[in-house]
Amino acid sequence: MKDNCIVAQSGGPTVAINASLAGVIDGVKKSNKFTRVYGAIHGIQGVLDNNFIDLSLMALSKFPLVNTLELSPAMYLGSCRYKLPDFEVDSKPYEIIFDRFEEYQVAAFFYIGGNDSMDTVDKLSKYAKKIGSDVKIVGIPKTIDNDLCHTDHTPGFGSAAKYVASTMLEIAHDTYIYQIPSVVIVEIMGRDAGWLTAASCLARNDYSPAPHLIYLPEVDFDEDQFIEDIKNVLKTSRCVIVAVSEGIHDKDGNYISATSAVADKFGHAQLSGTGKALESLVKDRMDIKVRSIELNVLQRCAAHISSRTDINESFALGQAAVKYAAEGMTAVMSTIKRVSNDPYQWIIEPENVSLIANQAKTIPLEWITPEKNDVTPEMEAYLRPLIIGEVSLQYKDGLPMYLPVNHLL
Amino acid sequence: MKDNCIVAQSGGPTVAINASLAGVIDGVKKSNKFTRVYGAIHGIQGVLDNNFIDLSLMALSKFPLVNTLELSPAMYLGSCRYKLPDFEVDSKPYEIIFDRFEEYQVAAFFYIGGNDSMDTVDKLSKYAKKIGSDVKIVGIPKTIDNDLCHTDHTPGFGSAAKYVASTMLEIAHDTYIYQIPSVVIVEIMGRDAGWLTAASCLARNDYSPAPHLIYLPEVDFDEDQFIEDIKNVLKTSRCVIVAVSEGIHDKDGNYISATSAVADKFGHAQLSGTGKALESLVKDRMDIKVRSIELNVLQRCAAHISSRTDINESFALGQAAVKYAAEGMTAVMSTIKRVSNDPYQWIIEPENVSLIANQAKTIPLEWITPEKNDVTPEMEAYLRPLIIGEVSLQYKDGLPMYLPVNHLL
Repeated sequence: MKDNCIVAQSGGPTVAINASLAGVIDGVKKSNKFTRVYGAIHGIQGVLDNNFIDLSLMALSKFPLVNTLELSPAMYLGSCRYKLPDFEVDSKPYEIIFDRFEEYQVAAFFYIGGNDSMDTVDKLSKYAKKIGSDVKIVGIPKTIDNDLCHTDHTPGFGSAAKYVASTMLEIAHDTYIYQIPSVVIVEIMGRDAGWLTAASCLARNDYSPAPHLIYLPEVDFDEDQFIEDIKNVLKTSRCVIVAVSEGIHDKDGNYISATSAVADKFGHAQLSGTGKALESLVKDRMDIKVRSIELNVLQRCAAHISSRTDINESFALGQAAVKYAAEGMTAVMSTIKRVSNDPYQWIIEPENVSLIANQAKTIPLEWITPEKNDVTPEMEAYLRPLIIGEVSLQYKDGLPMYLPVNHLL
Repeated sequence: MKDNCIVAQSGGPTVAINASLAGVIDGVKKSNKFTRVYGAIHGIQGVLDNNFIDLSLMALSKFPLVNTLELSPAMYLGSCRYKLPDFEVDSKPYEIIFDRFEEYQVAAFFYIGGNDSMDTVDKLSKYAKKIGSDVKIVGIPKTIDNDLCHTDHTPGFGSAAKYVASTMLEIAHDTYIYQIPSVVIVEIMGRDAGWLTAASCLARNDYSPAPHLIYLPEVDFDEDQFIEDIKNVLKTSRCVIVAVSEGIHDKDGNYISATSAVADKFGHAQLSGTGKALESLVKDRMDIKVRSIELNVLQRCAAHISSRTDINESFALGQAAVKYAAEGMTAVMSTIKRVSNDPYQWIIEPENVSLIANQAKTIPLEWITPEKNDVTPEMEAYLRPLIIGEVSLQYKDGLPMYLPVNHLL
């Protein structure tokens, strides 16, 4: 009897993706449809390589001495960047994968990831249909970029947004102490979508206006206007704190950080140094102290300051995926629908994954100010609920106790 | 009757320097020698400019709605980088300062800062002696660099070390997820002393060996040996995580990041890009994925993950300074003396500030391994107690509520 399932994780890490994994394990435990749940190590690659761990026991264990799976950063099962070929061109990997499903008596496959991972879900479910397999293929969203379509927001984004906003506030305190004028440029992840950079607006409060300027990849960036914007802020403020997306580009589409723009195997440009490029620009054009800060991977791995809301939602999205498969659904992704903002209420609904795969959701232009250097109050209202609530971690010897990942080393 | 005092902060910020300020305020409140305590805004510059706020009321307030002064990052009173001239050459600023002391009926001046600030304490106390002033001049240590002499360690260092170690652990989790070999280089502050970089060793645990390599400015850095070290680690590990001080240099004393080495007014070279320089080096010499991460100011401003031990000690050092002044001491700095490591016990003692001013304490060479790419267990034993204990912050709207600093804006 086919009553087992496989779960895997793919793409870049977040601090909430393990909460979705925990949700899947919990869902299986509570399900009367599934018996064992296997974790494929390194995403779909683990299925191809026959590299699994049995997570069924974990469903029963509480790991009382360490922070639970849901509060541990990065990906307990490891990741991959493997892109399935079109099965009309090369069906070999599909044959291996579905043979493996047979071998492990698998009734459902859960894939937690972003829009590239949803491409895998889409292709596997289409192949299943073609060969008449009844294995249910269900996606669970994940990305700090918040760029998946047909979901109000994505797991991992709220925690990254909380990190960005709290770090921006701490950088502001650090900057305000000096008497001499200064410019601080904070580079935030987000290649094509500026959601995470926009979240820096949440740092503002009664006494601290930082960031004074926000630049997003949804609109063209103009170097001359940028210098003008800084000069304008300096008329009323001793310092200018700028939030900038790594993916900003000029009106011709050239990245501001063009020096290291090489493409990865998905065709995404790999960027770095946008902050450094702007730092150099300010140094060239103005006589003022300037510093750039790249938040780098810290914004996606700082589990010690996760958003409780984000963790709870991520868990629920994993649980729901199991429920959908148990009910016979396939080719769907669990999504979050916001029911109301005040009080913040949400529900989870399934959505056709082929509408989500390879698509990206950028910021609505009406949420960006006409000056292209800030976001609107509507944006802040959308973002605020996602960072609410703190996680409570266990510490030992001064450090958070995350779930060991020996099996990845 | 001269029974007031002035306190000021100077140098770079830490997350513990406000705890020392809180300790001074508390000390004054409990003292029967002092009445009012004025905070000079922007260090000694605030005394010169007659820019004060009265902190006496703060001593009575608990700020129940926000995190208290001791848990707020950066410097509540602002900072300066003003260096007093030799008074034999130019006594003008000294005359202004001591006139101000008269004007405000000041019996004691407390200066919280690093070795440059202790130079100010030293010079002011020598000038006081010369003119026969009985104003007590007392220093309180502060620096994330941990490079002050005659104190076991410095306030701010423990919290920065906790940030570095926990971030290193989170970066390790983030790195372990990938199947392809990689090198990650984490650049940590510390121009001449590698204490903070060494603290990355605290991230190691039963499952995670990161950082695999640690490079410190106390020993010469050799590019060829660095590449050999990485290749050696790769024989048994898929990834290599490297902690490197911003101040590493070759055998001729040239900084590895020489491109942006310009001197500040104290004659310190301003460095950036050591991590980027090593990233380029690895890219040039090896065919492997490589990333560099600069912890930047985050390591000195991330108050949300402060060390409770550090905050407590910083507070106590501020309190003690008031006690020393009340007892008639001058030209001293409060210092921490470690009495035992297990259990960790410490006392506070005064020390002659002229032994501390302008001096720097580097890591004993016997705490660095012969291979010059790691630290010894003695180093870890020294560091561990300093990061123990967590702070409990108040949050509002998803963010820590730090003490407002409107007066600095």
